[in-house]
Amino acid sequence: MSDIRPIGIFDSGIGGLTVLRAIHELLPSESIVYLGDTARVPYGTKSRETIIRYSVNNARFLLNEGVKMVVVACNTASAHALEDVARLTTNPVIGVVEGGVIAALKEASGAIGVIGTEATIRSNKYPLEINRLQPGIKVFSKACPLFVALAEEGWTDNEVAHAVAKEYLEEFKGTIGALVLGCTHYPPLKGVIRSVLGEHVRLIDSAEETARIVGERLENLGMRALGAQRGKITMAVTDSPERSLEVGRRLLGRDLEISGVTLVDIL
Amino acid sequence: MSDIRPIGIFDSGIGGLTVLRAIHELLPSESIVYLGDTARVPYGTKSRETIIRYSVNNARFLLNEGVKMVVVACNTASAHALEDVARLTTNPVIGVVEGGVIAALKEASGAIGVIGTEATIRSNKYPLEINRLQPGIKVFSKACPLFVALAEEGWTDNEVAHAVAKEYLEEFKGTIGALVLGCTHYPPLKGVIRSVLGEHVRLIDSAEETARIVGERLENLGMRALGAQRGKITMAVTDSPERSLEVGRRLLGRDLEISGVTLVDIL
Repeated sequence: MSDIRPIGIFDSGIGGLTVLRAIHELLPSESIVYLGDTARVPYGTKSRETIIRYSVNNARFLLNEGVKMVVVACNTASAHALEDVARLTTNPVIGVVEGGVIAALKEASGAIGVIGTEATIRSNKYPLEINRLQPGIKVFSKACPLFVALAEEGWTDNEVAHAVAKEYLEEFKGTIGALVLGCTHYPPLKGVIRSVLGEHVRLIDSAEETARIVGERLENLGMRALGAQRGKITMAVTDSPERSLEVGRRLLGRDLEISGVTLVDIL
Repeated sequence: MSDIRPIGIFDSGIGGLTVLRAIHELLPSESIVYLGDTARVPYGTKSRETIIRYSVNNARFLLNEGVKMVVVACNTASAHALEDVARLTTNPVIGVVEGGVIAALKEASGAIGVIGTEATIRSNKYPLEINRLQPGIKVFSKACPLFVALAEEGWTDNEVAHAVAKEYLEEFKGTIGALVLGCTHYPPLKGVIRSVLGEHVRLIDSAEETARIVGERLENLGMRALGAQRGKITMAVTDSPERSLEVGRRLLGRDLEISGVTLVDIL
């Protein structure tokens, strides 16, 4: 049996498209509905209550679209609202923290650094999960709010990007073996982060590991879309599609390969 | 007759507290209700339609609180939604663009620069208003989205702040006589902006001029709160009050002098 219902993915904005891309590359026959809550982005500066409220709202939209699984492709929402989203459905719900933690434990030797939004770091989710799976590992976390603004501005390799990375990350130098990029906006900044921390520090981007977990879970539950046909990818946003496409292109570094973006009213 | 109804002020977040402070200093007997829409901040990256929707929503809350005037203390909302807010009421509605334009024309010799959020610059409101009042003046505008993140992070005088200011403003050097700080988040960055542009460029912060206009308008309409009693200041936010107070303190550089902040549900 082939389960051709789409996978639902939501993010506070369009950063989660990096997760969409990884899932699509690994599981090309799966259809995907992506929701970017661009009218209320960012979540990383908001309170836990508000993050939960928006996340539940987004997940409800996806479930109404008939998705077979909900992927919370936003670290802030995964850190605060995963349980609340999971309570809405019997379908599997997967966040990006799990993938980041597993990838970090695979790659790390020594202490692990975690960077993310204010809300993600405040949640303490990464240190707790890392130590649940492997007690005793030292975890250093730091909120890096300006990285989001840099990535959205497309300033990933100029003087400003270097100064910001130095200001945030110099304290990690020499103390960590791996750094979890705990926000979907950070991967474009890998180069400048590496220039501060050095080549030997592994930079953990949870997108690929999350895609692997998604595939594994669907497989185990007998929910894969089988066959050679490529899945259909649709994207919805809560604010004007134009800017989403523009910022999305800047983040992904090339065309989105998504034909249309729909504006939906879920507020 | 003394009109003791409060003045209503709203902003996308807590940057508008600089406007509240200016109004309170000029008109200490006026009571003020301030609403910061911290659950949906920022507006500067959102579309015109969304900015109008949120602004109308905020103004309705203030009008329900019985305010005699609505001050839109957010440049982005003033640039896009002032007419829509004005249509909700027969009470006076005042934005911050007007004050910025008047102050710039008073102070400027030669061309005027305007910086603001993406949405404020995209609206073209400042150049249009400046040229309506004084045709022929050259206006150069530029969106400076990272300035908001810098001000919120409290990085107003470090290496990063200097690098960002240089990246954005170097092109203005030698071409303008005044620069309108077209976002309530920018005043804390005055020092670093001045270090790029030089001491001779006048930096225009619309808060004081807006307070003057508010006082004049109330006076002309016979709507002043008279007497020696100090007005009551109350503040409401749409997301958790804690962070608002913290960021507010960073922005105002000292205690807010506001006793309590209420969380309101207007979403």
